[in-house]
Amino acid sequence: MCELCDNPGGEVLWQDALCRVVLVEDRDYPGFCRVIWTKHVKEMTDLPVAQRRHLMDVVFAVESAVRQKLQPDKINLASLGNMTPHLHWHVIPRWRGDRNFPDAIWGEMQRDARPAAPEKLAEGLRTIIHEAMHPASD
Amino acid sequence: MCELCDNPGGEVLWQDALCRVVLVEDRDYPGFCRVIWTKHVKEMTDLPVAQRRHLMDVVFAVESAVRQKLQPDKINLASLGNMTPHLHWHVIPRWRGDRNFPDAIWGEMQRDARPAAPEKLAEGLRTIIHEAMHPASD
Repeated sequence: MCELCDNPGGEVLWQDALCRVVLVEDRDYPGFCRVIWTKHVKEMTDLPVAQRRHLMDVVFAVESAVRQKLQPDKINLASLGNMTPHLHWHVIPRWRGDRNFPDAIWGEMQRDARPAAPEKLAEGLRTIIHEAMHPASD
Repeated sequence: MCELCDNPGGEVLWQDALCRVVLVEDRDYPGFCRVIWTKHVKEMTDLPVAQRRHLMDVVFAVESAVRQKLQPDKINLASLGNMTPHLHWHVIPRWRGDRNFPDAIWGEMQRDARPAAPEKLAEGLRTIIHEAMHPASD
């Protein structure tokens, strides 16, 4: 049983046969997205080179969309998978006043922040990611 | 002033004009490497696509070398840069009994572990990374 084999893991913003982008439900980090590989694969270097590139292209399309939509002070990217060894990337917008800044979001809470999410965040991200992954008249 | 503009940040295992691989001095995480972009650039999506690919190719060459040399239970990859907004990737070998497992290494300490580093670790990693980045008779 694997959580990411069995569940979408968030609101799906985009997907193809290889992977999906989801918006994570996290009140401390609006705009926190994950890119989840469809197959149960553990490490990046378990993928053939072309698939690694595809996955990173999607991660960077999400990074661009999050920057465009939210203008964070920093983007954090991470593929950990210690608890769920099913390949997935965290794309996390960070702000100077957020819950953990300047520590990683997995560190001790620094302050109670709860920033407001911009309106129609999912729709906005969905549009930008779709345009990046299917350019021109696709 | 930027720490990664001014200092190598560890023992250099490999480098080209664009980036360098260093072995981090961390007694809790032998084999912890970083891949540091040479120029002071903040985010992956500030790089042109070809340079992003090059940087990720190096990150994955390091991941392969660390897996081959240390056989960790998991690899953690992360580009955070909240404190030092100069593009760098953490490549961290993780073990079930390590200091923070299954949490991120930036979380609270779970136990005192201090695993022994394999002998000639730097030399071993250097050889494998060099072979991956300069295949054949280069």
